[in-house]
Amino acid sequence: MGEFDLIAKYFDRPVRRSPLGIGDDCALLQPAPGMQLAVTSDMLVEGRHFLSTVDPRWLGHKSLAVNLSDPGAAGARPLAFTLSLALPSADAAWLAGFSEGLLALADAHGCELVGGDTTRGPLCINITAFGEVPAGRALLRSGARAGDDLWVSGTLGDARLALEAFRGRISLPQAIFDAARVRMEQPQPRVALGQALVGVATSAIDISDGLLGDLAHILQRSGVGASVNAACAPQLLAATAAGLQLDEAVVRELVLAGGDDYELAFTAPASQRAAVEAAGAQAGTRVTRIGAIDAGPGLRVLDAGGRALAQDFAGFDHFR
Amino acid sequence: MGEFDLIAKYFDRPVRRSPLGIGDDCALLQPAPGMQLAVTSDMLVEGRHFLSTVDPRWLGHKSLAVNLSDPGAAGARPLAFTLSLALPSADAAWLAGFSEGLLALADAHGCELVGGDTTRGPLCINITAFGEVPAGRALLRSGARAGDDLWVSGTLGDARLALEAFRGRISLPQAIFDAARVRMEQPQPRVALGQALVGVATSAIDISDGLLGDLAHILQRSGVGASVNAACAPQLLAATAAGLQLDEAVVRELVLAGGDDYELAFTAPASQRAAVEAAGAQAGTRVTRIGAIDAGPGLRVLDAGGRALAQDFAGFDHFR
Repeated sequence: MGEFDLIAKYFDRPVRRSPLGIGDDCALLQPAPGMQLAVTSDMLVEGRHFLSTVDPRWLGHKSLAVNLSDPGAAGARPLAFTLSLALPSADAAWLAGFSEGLLALADAHGCELVGGDTTRGPLCINITAFGEVPAGRALLRSGARAGDDLWVSGTLGDARLALEAFRGRISLPQAIFDAARVRMEQPQPRVALGQALVGVATSAIDISDGLLGDLAHILQRSGVGASVNAACAPQLLAATAAGLQLDEAVVRELVLAGGDDYELAFTAPASQRAAVEAAGAQAGTRVTRIGAIDAGPGLRVLDAGGRALAQDFAGFDHFR
Repeated sequence: MGEFDLIAKYFDRPVRRSPLGIGDDCALLQPAPGMQLAVTSDMLVEGRHFLSTVDPRWLGHKSLAVNLSDPGAAGARPLAFTLSLALPSADAAWLAGFSEGLLALADAHGCELVGGDTTRGPLCINITAFGEVPAGRALLRSGARAGDDLWVSGTLGDARLALEAFRGRISLPQAIFDAARVRMEQPQPRVALGQALVGVATSAIDISDGLLGDLAHILQRSGVGASVNAACAPQLLAATAAGLQLDEAVVRELVLAGGDDYELAFTAPASQRAAVEAAGAQAGTRVTRIGAIDAGPGLRVLDAGGRALAQDFAGFDHFR
């Protein structure tokens, strides 16, 4: 199958939100008056971001999900995306599954595929996603203030738990493995929550590299510190709620530094607690208060008694 | 070197055109009132789009050049781009060269790096570029009309000539090889010409896969045919002007189907010939009239006597 046939068969669909979709030199995008475009780009490489055994449907889903997670963290409404795909071969079954998973998530968010590139090469997927946000209202990493509450959405650590099970480092009951695997393979980008938090939260980031590592970006950009209550960890790991018994330190490692969660970490003034809860309810996403922003620099992880934990957490860093 | 250090050291610079640059979940873009964003994405894979021996500086240059070529063909002014980079290792010398070549071309076009992604993996580069064009004025593939002239910019076929020399299929005098190699490794995107052609040309495309193959996209989208005068071929190959003697059929193959040229093919009414020449002069780019758009479908390559040539030309197709 040729490159252009491949695009036509699996990826070319009518577009509504872009004045011009797939098939010209460029797609054309026009944010509504007073809106800014929030742009993000994420690349997925086999063996690093997904296992070679993954169902292509879930790979398609996840490729877009990890990208929509960023406009979500900015409080932007997804609008469109481009897809660049390097493939070892034009495998029809793979392409059918990949495009099905990709476009199902795109449809769920009203986000249109407007362009991209396909080529032969080692399997590599790059998506650039575009969201729309009222000018000056995007949730940034730089807005956290001393005294703000620190919150996270959803549950954390289950994706990493599934990865450790795939790696054979941990053995899980089937039901817990299945649920964790869904978290690893089918993350749900928190775009509804992000939009609901515009005007409520002071800063936000999506948790892709582990909570503590990503939180550090907020602290650096905002010029503040934070205290995280590690006693929250068990209630944030879905596997624990499902009855899995794990060492406390392992639970903390998974929740605080596991990565691949695609939940939001965000800050909001204490006066906005009810508004944060309402935003979570509106988005159908659980929100949990896990700490506070401090005026002094540094990131402290505290036990239930408020004492600093000595445990070392190192977030993923793709070049470490 | 960690991912974030790598970005900070080689790629993070102050941005002026974007309300928010590198370092948040999303970059923010805001086209001026009445403007549309022209968006394009191209992926480059080692062995397919560049040789492993290429100077990283020229790889950086070319990675952006092939992307800016698309806003050029749309008549858009480059504004910003995102860069996704999968690298086998964080090699300082490679990164210094790559970022130098990339950012030098970006600066030459006033186009800012606003975001992206870095990860470890087989060398793969994806850029998404953003240009600005007055709403409704972009040069599309669909605007060619029967009776229009068919034009190309610059010279064609020299990049492919260099590739064939690298492959050992042809032997070239050093000076001609050096010049052809510059065409292969350092293409100059025709963005000034594209902008000058807005309101003059009826359709345009950038020639990346070979003139005939790319022209076919204009014909398909516009519902027309075309006749190309193959007698133009020798004057379009810079190596011929420099004295290289080649078989006529080879020259035609290089010029009409060589690929990797990043010149523009475009159409304009015969009444606009002076305006096309003026646009070329304004942009400092040669323009050559090489044929005409026909009402009937099909793409005919004619010899100097107006007879159809039997020679078979097959443009690149990355999955053929």
